[in-house]
Amino acid sequence: MEIGAQTVILGGGVAGTGPFMLQGAVVVEAGRILWVGPQADLPSDYASWSVLDLEGRLLTPAFIDCHTHIVHGGHRAREFEMRLEGASYEEVARAGGGIVSTVTATRKADEDSLVASALPRLDTLIGEGVSCVEVKSGYGLDQEVELRMLRAARRLGDLRPVRIRTSFLGAHATPAEYKGRDDAYIDEVCIPTLRAAHAEGLVDAVDGFCEGIAFNTSQISRVFDVARELGLPVKLHAEQLSNIGGCALAAKYGAMSVDHVEYATEADAKLLATSGTVAVLLPGAFYAIRETQMPPVAAFRAHGVPMALATDCNPGTSPMTSLLLAMNMGCTLFRMTPEEALRGVTEHAARALGLTDTGVIAPGMRADLAIWNVETPAELAYRFGFNPLHQRIFGGKE
Amino acid sequence: MEIGAQTVILGGGVAGTGPFMLQGAVVVEAGRILWVGPQADLPSDYASWSVLDLEGRLLTPAFIDCHTHIVHGGHRAREFEMRLEGASYEEVARAGGGIVSTVTATRKADEDSLVASALPRLDTLIGEGVSCVEVKSGYGLDQEVELRMLRAARRLGDLRPVRIRTSFLGAHATPAEYKGRDDAYIDEVCIPTLRAAHAEGLVDAVDGFCEGIAFNTSQISRVFDVARELGLPVKLHAEQLSNIGGCALAAKYGAMSVDHVEYATEADAKLLATSGTVAVLLPGAFYAIRETQMPPVAAFRAHGVPMALATDCNPGTSPMTSLLLAMNMGCTLFRMTPEEALRGVTEHAARALGLTDTGVIAPGMRADLAIWNVETPAELAYRFGFNPLHQRIFGGKE
Ligand SMILES: [Zn+2]
Ligand SMILES: [Zn+2]
Repeated sequence: MEIGAQTVILGGGVAGTGPFMLQGAVVVEAGRILWVGPQADLPSDYASWSVLDLEGRLLTPAFIDCHTHIVHGGHRAREFEMRLEGASYEEVARAGGGIVSTVTATRKADEDSLVASALPRLDTLIGEGVSCVEVKSGYGLDQEVELRMLRAARRLGDLRPVRIRTSFLGAHATPAEYKGRDDAYIDEVCIPTLRAAHAEGLVDAVDGFCEGIAFNTSQISRVFDVARELGLPVKLHAEQLSNIGGCALAAKYGAMSVDHVEYATEADAKLLATSGTVAVLLPGAFYAIRETQMPPVAAFRAHGVPMALATDCNPGTSPMTSLLLAMNMGCTLFRMTPEEALRGVTEHAARALGLTDTGVIAPGMRADLAIWNVETPAELAYRFGFNPLHQRIFGGKE
Repeated sequence: MEIGAQTVILGGGVAGTGPFMLQGAVVVEAGRILWVGPQADLPSDYASWSVLDLEGRLLTPAFIDCHTHIVHGGHRAREFEMRLEGASYEEVARAGGGIVSTVTATRKADEDSLVASALPRLDTLIGEGVSCVEVKSGYGLDQEVELRMLRAARRLGDLRPVRIRTSFLGAHATPAEYKGRDDAYIDEVCIPTLRAAHAEGLVDAVDGFCEGIAFNTSQISRVFDVARELGLPVKLHAEQLSNIGGCALAAKYGAMSVDHVEYATEADAKLLATSGTVAVLLPGAFYAIRETQMPPVAAFRAHGVPMALATDCNPGTSPMTSLLLAMNMGCTLFRMTPEEALRGVTEHAARALGLTDTGVIAPGMRADLAIWNVETPAELAYRFGFNPLHQRIFGGKE
């Protein structure tokens, strides 16, 4: 199927426009959506335009993976294996496992090899209809390598037809050379690196890991204050393993998203609703670490907190590269509905990244679209380990 | 990479030969494996043969999916959605959901459409390095449609470079027209249909569903007695939701496999070890129905029961088409090791189907091989939602 400068897409179901349309039509001009509605209402003005016939297929917004650590050195398959062979956490750590091993591997990797190792993962996402991928730093933990990760992330967007949004995650962990001196790491490394990365135009948002095993709210606040000073939006890894007030802090700073949030409470949900913060659910990590505490989906739903879904693609707790699988897991493990799962990888994922020109099918939006060999949105979340993508359209182009 | 009539494969790791070889060599002639060993020991006789250089990649046996219901009509995405929207089982049943809906859809589908709808699922498996797929009947539940399903399965093997092994599963459920008359269904429909299917050469093995919600051991015994009379091997869906003696029955009949087996006991494991029966674990179904009872992996391991892994690809409880994901789930959910997961989709899967010429890399075996863009076997199970297949070799051919 070809798509021209002026094209009418019709002949199948259209989701991502509000209510699902069984027979919808979408008019695209110069990479933007011009008109959307039931096919029966298509204005005659477009009668002479070229037609892309869905032949019964489903059209949705292209997918957005709004939380990834897709740029990183090495992998942790041996650690995965050791744990299954019965090794203790100490034994894994002694063998160089854990996040330290990814920091070591990332520091050893040059920019070219960071890009090269990320590309097959990125291509897998694109092959599932993804048009936009968020990429975090956070495995350098020093100025040189944090910037290298962000430069590698930007290059991914030059090498492939995909939009990359970067998040600075210097506050991911304290590196070995600052062991026991978390505050010094934040003040002496993390914040100066954020300023340097911003000066180089490498930062779209600022992220942190607020957790008992990572940074506390006062440390994260110092990073967020600098973000505010620099005019950068913030987001936060919060309430994954415990509740130490990450959601409340994020809401206070008007964060675009809080991510993981298994241990968030109903009170947190109320705060997030007020601040307009998206809850980004990461079922791949929940599954991989065999977590049993479910995020408060019903409370998010009740209070109107938008829920997004992402892969959290990372070498430790979520070596996953499928948003379709994240949708199925969002339904199976978190009891989201298929409709919520679809909005979670489109409309709400866009919102988690502060993007207002993609993620829904509406006039004025970018023509970032996906055509699927299914008839209804529910089928996208229902199967797993199956990719029904027929065609992706990125900014109006194939 | 090309593979000729006489080829030496070398330059990377080789698994599926016993101990993993970091630098192995495999000699292939006319679709069969002639020699396997460390690359350093490669006999000089083969020096003039053409070389397929792995360039550091991993070579394994091609994968085998030893338990699928890949031929079926329709799908159950709407049922999946209704449950997540809060519908009760009665509401789902009233809306025509459950296995009944798949029986209805399968009966409505002609052979061509059963083949056409199975092909994308089959192609997905082949795209992950699968060379052999078991396909069950069991959604016809009358003679005409059970035979139609098996003919459709056989045709899949004509249309694609893949080996198909059929299992007759007339004893899957009692159809509506025999409601409350399970014994009459077994005697009047299931057994005569088995005889007819066997007469037409459509049956490689005989399967049954032994469960409180399906058939009891005395009903299954009658089917197995006919299988024995016809010289057909047997296998059994057993101990998925409860323990009603399926494993013990299967062991008594020398079954090739017992499948699911979450509720099997240590005593069952001992019986299976004695009868040489493979335990086929189906983590996709375990995941999808949110089962919490884990199969007794430690007991299987301790007593030497071979464990296989399969997709159980079916429209109700496991709409899954990825053996790589089944491997990850086998490790993550069932605590198998990556090595066990790999043997589970190769050597032990072959054994679950009674195949003695595939599933391992050894002299005399078919050259059914897979080349992966990874270095070690553990990487295959570690990632999820990612397909690192570089090339599949089927009977020595690309
Ligand atoms: Zn993360
Ligand atoms: Zn089954």
